[in-house]
Amino acid sequence: MVYLDNSATTRVSEKAAQKALYMMTECFGNPSSLHNLGFKAELEIKNARRIISQALSCREGELYFTSGGTESNNTAILGSVQANKRRGNKIVVSSYEHSSVLEAAEHLSQNGIEVVYVKPQKNGKITAEDISKAVDDKTLLVSVMLVNNEIGTVNDVATIAAAARRKNSKIIVHCDAVQAFGKIPVNVGRLGADLISISAHKIHGPKGVGALFVKKGTKISPIIFGGEQQNRFRPGTENAAAIASFGVAAEEAVKNMAKAYSDVKGLRQRLVDELSRVSGVVINSPEDACPYIVNFSTMCIKSETILHFLEQEEIYVSSGSACAKGKKSHVLGEIGVSDLAADTAVRVSFSTENSQSDVDALIGSVKKAMDTLQKIK
Amino acid sequence: MVYLDNSATTRVSEKAAQKALYMMTECFGNPSSLHNLGFKAELEIKNARRIISQALSCREGELYFTSGGTESNNTAILGSVQANKRRGNKIVVSSYEHSSVLEAAEHLSQNGIEVVYVKPQKNGKITAEDISKAVDDKTLLVSVMLVNNEIGTVNDVATIAAAARRKNSKIIVHCDAVQAFGKIPVNVGRLGADLISISAHKIHGPKGVGALFVKKGTKISPIIFGGEQQNRFRPGTENAAAIASFGVAAEEAVKNMAKAYSDVKGLRQRLVDELSRVSGVVINSPEDACPYIVNFSTMCIKSETILHFLEQEEIYVSSGSACAKGKKSHVLGEIGVSDLAADTAVRVSFSTENSQSDVDALIGSVKKAMDTLQKIK
Repeated sequence: MVYLDNSATTRVSEKAAQKALYMMTECFGNPSSLHNLGFKAELEIKNARRIISQALSCREGELYFTSGGTESNNTAILGSVQANKRRGNKIVVSSYEHSSVLEAAEHLSQNGIEVVYVKPQKNGKITAEDISKAVDDKTLLVSVMLVNNEIGTVNDVATIAAAARRKNSKIIVHCDAVQAFGKIPVNVGRLGADLISISAHKIHGPKGVGALFVKKGTKISPIIFGGEQQNRFRPGTENAAAIASFGVAAEEAVKNMAKAYSDVKGLRQRLVDELSRVSGVVINSPEDACPYIVNFSTMCIKSETILHFLEQEEIYVSSGSACAKGKKSHVLGEIGVSDLAADTAVRVSFSTENSQSDVDALIGSVKKAMDTLQKIK
Repeated sequence: MVYLDNSATTRVSEKAAQKALYMMTECFGNPSSLHNLGFKAELEIKNARRIISQALSCREGELYFTSGGTESNNTAILGSVQANKRRGNKIVVSSYEHSSVLEAAEHLSQNGIEVVYVKPQKNGKITAEDISKAVDDKTLLVSVMLVNNEIGTVNDVATIAAAARRKNSKIIVHCDAVQAFGKIPVNVGRLGADLISISAHKIHGPKGVGALFVKKGTKISPIIFGGEQQNRFRPGTENAAAIASFGVAAEEAVKNMAKAYSDVKGLRQRLVDELSRVSGVVINSPEDACPYIVNFSTMCIKSETILHFLEQEEIYVSSGSACAKGKKSHVLGEIGVSDLAADTAVRVSFSTENSQSDVDALIGSVKKAMDTLQKIK
């Protein structure tokens, strides 16, 4: 099996999976229980919180566990607007955010909030200038992702945040760093964001757990209400197994980050070099994109068709975001690629588990597909 | 170890844990991915959905997976009010609901919704008459739990729902069945509720996953927004490992339900009989409560003190809801027990994994505690 759909999700690492198993069957107490078994589970959560806060260079008290990237993004968008409504009625988001940011914004727009969408440039990046233009006195929030999930472009969030704050010093900056965390440095100080979303299952941790960094002093309301857990900001019995497992995965990812990045960069280069030699193929991911994601278009075979062809050879890639379930990519539209390029796009996404032979297998099969499958006009 | 805190959480069963492990390391695809690995994960989710819908006697399309009971309750309360605001501005909830219902209601009350709290009788039950009195034309929702999480009393939700509907035919009825599902029959038709919350980790499934039954035709909005998953009602990458594991746990629980109930009833009887012989001890759970939960008060030793004493003997019980993290029980207050009874309360909660020897160990240690620990006046 050649698995090249790691931006959709990853295999849970052996160590992270074993930690989850241990939590489920041995250290299974409720972290809020007042006895020893609860205390042990709470310690595991504390340990994961320590690891992940260190990875982000934030305080432990600034990190809240959620059920995943979607909940983190929703909490950031809906919670910060709810808490700051008196200051304004406008938010600014980039137009190629993940659907969990865009749909949360859309929900707000149906409830009296003005949402300004800022388009990326053709190079797939959001500029500080464009964000700055959109921000005014009434703007509560800016949300710009760090690494785009379909094309891999990396935004200069620090510069964007600074520019937004020059226009409105009270603005809250949110950054969806789901595709960045564990792959490139995500340092809360350097990023300059008040809210940062991350997720476990993109870095060989389990599905169903993510986190939201909330900078100390940021006014934000919860979106889920209940018990005393996590300072009442995110109540509900903590998903202790998944959180502890997230900690293990994050530790592994951060420890190996530099080497993994360099290895994956090599894989990316090999892929792009080879694809560039295939007549007609267009690479949609810019040269300076995060190497973990390579988006290209065959310009002659529909995405679904080549996906299924590759799947027969046990090569797994995607046509875009898994969350879109095959719906047309909004990201490629926003960076202005042609309809043909969008309809024939393939997203390859790497992890540390991939090797050169995976790339070679993919290239061989793409060529085979282009030689044998019927082409669209 | 004698674990008698199963209403806080349970050990994940071996079979359910192995399923989660398999999902994390082998069947790890994103259920929304268009390739075979995604499809396999989707099949596992479908299978879990089939098992749990069968257990509830509902349609598969009426079941939505969430991150747990707290999210299910929040979705039910906040989502139904959001979708039906035009019809009224009032909701009716029982006053001894779980904090995730009460706090969601409190959030609404801060946002223009009138919340009427209906108190239980001294026998720990909510009456249809009291609910009926509180319901009027402007009432959108009634929320009454099936089994109370601290004292185990079982409400006649069917009669309550019918009474509420006689006052207002359009009313939505929500039932928090988290402490009931897998222990006593929860049949959506017989219960007559439009929305039912359940959770995995109370029945030897993993933490971090629950479900909300939404009766076909019920108007309800999502509280989290994003991708195409679960008909967009609960987007975000499905927690496939936990969902599949939930399916296994639900299947085991339902298959063994009758025998387990009878076994646990025996344990409860043994416990209550023995405790009744201990001078001064008061049983707070009525005779007809669900046998899985027994709440009693020593009337002489503070809850925390006896909890720690028992913990030394590796016996794990609780003073009330784990979600309250040791805060004073609101449930005991609502049923009108004395302050002394509330301050000295102990909740014992059984699972199928408990045996007579667990009960005997507990009784021995409770007696020892009462003989040796300093008593409060």
